[in-house]
Amino acid sequence: MLKNLKERVCEQNLELVKYGLVVLTWGNVSALSEDGKYVVIKPSGVSYDKMKAGDMVVTDRAGNVVEGDLRPSTDLATHLALYDAFPGIGGAVHTHSRFAVAAAQAGLDIPCYGTTHADYFYGAVPCARELTAQEIEEAYERNTGLVIAETFRDRGIDPLAVPAVLVKSHGPFTWGKTPEKAVENAVVLDECAHMALLTRLFDPTAAPAAQCILDKHYFRKHGANAYYGQK
Amino acid sequence: MLKNLKERVCEQNLELVKYGLVVLTWGNVSALSEDGKYVVIKPSGVSYDKMKAGDMVVTDRAGNVVEGDLRPSTDLATHLALYDAFPGIGGAVHTHSRFAVAAAQAGLDIPCYGTTHADYFYGAVPCARELTAQEIEEAYERNTGLVIAETFRDRGIDPLAVPAVLVKSHGPFTWGKTPEKAVENAVVLDECAHMALLTRLFDPTAAPAAQCILDKHYFRKHGANAYYGQK
Amino acid sequence: MLKNLKERVCEQNLELVKYGLVVLTWGNVSALSEDGKYVVIKPSGVSYDKMKAGDMVVTDRAGNVVEGDLRPSTDLATHLALYDAFPGIGGAVHTHSRFAVAAAQAGLDIPCYGTTHADYFYGAVPCARELTAQEIEEAYERNTGLVIAETFRDRGIDPLAVPAVLVKSHGPFTWGKTPEKAVENAVVLDECAHMALLTRLFDPTAAPAAQCILDKHYFRKHGANAYYGQK
Amino acid sequence: MLKNLKERVCEQNLELVKYGLVVLTWGNVSALSEDGKYVVIKPSGVSYDKMKAGDMVVTDRAGNVVEGDLRPSTDLATHLALYDAFPGIGGAVHTHSRFAVAAAQAGLDIPCYGTTHADYFYGAVPCARELTAQEIEEAYERNTGLVIAETFRDRGIDPLAVPAVLVKSHGPFTWGKTPEKAVENAVVLDECAHMALLTRLFDPTAAPAAQCILDKHYFRKHGANAYYGQK
Repeated sequence: MLKNLKERVCEQNLELVKYGLVVLTWGNVSALSEDGKYVVIKPSGVSYDKMKAGDMVVTDRAGNVVEGDLRPSTDLATHLALYDAFPGIGGAVHTHSRFAVAAAQAGLDIPCYGTTHADYFYGAVPCARELTAQEIEEAYERNTGLVIAETFRDRGIDPLAVPAVLVKSHGPFTWGKTPEKAVENAVVLDECAHMALLTRLFDPTAAPAAQCILDKHYFRKHGANAYYGQK
Repeated sequence: MLKNLKERVCEQNLELVKYGLVVLTWGNVSALSEDGKYVVIKPSGVSYDKMKAGDMVVTDRAGNVVEGDLRPSTDLATHLALYDAFPGIGGAVHTHSRFAVAAAQAGLDIPCYGTTHADYFYGAVPCARELTAQEIEEAYERNTGLVIAETFRDRGIDPLAVPAVLVKSHGPFTWGKTPEKAVENAVVLDECAHMALLTRLFDPTAAPAAQCILDKHYFRKHGANAYYGQK
Repeated sequence: MLKNLKERVCEQNLELVKYGLVVLTWGNVSALSEDGKYVVIKPSGVSYDKMKAGDMVVTDRAGNVVEGDLRPSTDLATHLALYDAFPGIGGAVHTHSRFAVAAAQAGLDIPCYGTTHADYFYGAVPCARELTAQEIEEAYERNTGLVIAETFRDRGIDPLAVPAVLVKSHGPFTWGKTPEKAVENAVVLDECAHMALLTRLFDPTAAPAAQCILDKHYFRKHGANAYYGQK
Repeated sequence: MLKNLKERVCEQNLELVKYGLVVLTWGNVSALSEDGKYVVIKPSGVSYDKMKAGDMVVTDRAGNVVEGDLRPSTDLATHLALYDAFPGIGGAVHTHSRFAVAAAQAGLDIPCYGTTHADYFYGAVPCARELTAQEIEEAYERNTGLVIAETFRDRGIDPLAVPAVLVKSHGPFTWGKTPEKAVENAVVLDECAHMALLTRLFDPTAAPAAQCILDKHYFRKHGANAYYGQK
């Protein structure tokens, strides 16, 4: 069942290791099946050294395991909430990558300080509020996803134009049309968080890039008039 | 004698290198035998390149070498004091890992700024006080262990819930039920120290995570109601 | 056509990866043909894993593709403007290397704090101004090159003595007599930006190196009286 | 001539690369022959990839090349001055390692903040003053060595107990009884400079370690009563 998608999800989980975004068993990648009925996700707490495609867990949209001998990632309910809230995405990623976590722990948005950021994220990457004690107790993982969705709705941010978020005191989630794109966004998010911190260390009063350079770089890579890359 | 445990201790010493926690011959891992009678520890000042299981030194709980041609780590007496003070631990680690050392040199606890920390340490990792000149002269290594034990006792911290400490002007010690767990805690401690510093650089006034998120993450991985990982 | 130069340009693009200056498909290296008629440049958005010499694109000085099946780097027009403005250079490089980008995002020159910098750059590496909205809309990439040229002209800096620039809110460009030298300058620029930041973190009031030590180090490596390296 | 020493010097130059202390062709290691008549040093500006033992240059104590087809390192005269000023040393190293350079560019001593430093350096690593314009013009490399010697003499520091120095606006030199020890000291110096910076970032008011802990750690590894390592 979904053999090809399990291979892709497994491979993308291993990409997190290759890009230095995970320590030990931290982090997880999921994907939505093309028909939108199933989610394929990394199993919980399994070593990356031994992980293989057959270990990936398949669930329905309510989180019931429909295939797989292992428990799914504990963060499954967050992924499910993201697929529900953000139509058009096909992959989601959670990591504890160092620089994005640090910004999340500080409770700060990552401003768009320059073109590296603008090439991938159309504006600041928002930091979602802390969950309340009640939200944590009732359904922590699902509510994490709902608070992310709330953040984009309340601040009027298009989740396809800014496919990343920080969760206060926790860390980053990213997404994309495919699991491959979601992982790419996780790589870029940590790099942008790193560069943002270095920028502030060079000058604590550094201002975000002007809107015109943000527009230029974002739209030369995205949308109808994009001219970056091959046709 | 204790052939299997010597192999595990040797392997875990080499894990310190793999995880980038040691430079040159710094750092050491020990383990307590199952019957609680012996300690297996890395020899002093031996190159990691050439280290093999047979080089591990076996001592009794008073520190007398009972097997091995090499001298044990100079930090042996600290390890022994930790095994005496903290019943239930089976492995201990000392490193000079960069970020934990920096916090120790600054004399600061590592606050729990987020879930990465909360997944492993139930609250701030304490920084033990400096030893007095007399404590240093009389029995430096043993007194280091006693001061660590004093810190946990005086501050009412459960050493199994916070299996790590910084020693002022020195560096980190970690422990766990097994030497493998003690090394894992050493890896996570340095990562948390690194993230803590980055968090403070993003915002010097950053506050620790709320108690409810600390509870949630710690207890979803530890204790009777844990649901992280595989059954 | 220009087979040897395509091999060199391809190899130098891969050097950017080897030196850790690029993430994903970011960055590009170009070279000018010996007769000054053609530019060889990396194709746009192609993965470094799969890149081969035959993928390099050859254009004329107006940017018309004269050979190659792929689109040239979107930054081609900046490279062309640099070759026009700075006679004597034979290679140009653009990266999003982390420390140079951070200084560019902060809008700061990189001062010459010591001999590491002085060995390669005869004085501060300037940060060019932001482009205006009009410059961005009309011909972004070409105007980026023109603003770089303006910076060197207005500030009276010799582009052969300071073969590097930061573009505000964007990142670094470097150049040299050959593409190999341009890449070497990109490596050194990021290292100097890193060291500059660390210097300021050690002491925010640190002053640039004295003119006499800048002169000594620059001229023991460059010009008629150089005595560094082999004859 | 001195075949074995040339192999050791070559190998130690390559160790600088292995430990991440050099970029491109930066850095150099030398050794004094056992009879004290000759110095073996890396050639100037040669790529580490291609360097072999036979490329090492042999000079007399006045700096005259007595064997070798290549020019010696431009820093030869500094090494010679160190061998003259510091009897008992048999190897010397110069690098542009990042953290030591940053402290040198800031013109700061590296205080002994803890045991990592105390294990190798008995007190702060001093930063030597800038050379005067006249000293630079007359005999830059030789005067660099003389200013280092002056620093140790004026401040009453034993060069065998603190086998490292920073030169203002330039970078570190280290030495030791053998070239192997000198390289080890270069590795530790950069690590200590890194940890010192991190310590200050954790707490800008952090104080150096107490004298008693410095004494303890230094003398458990050095001198008649040392008990670290194997007999």
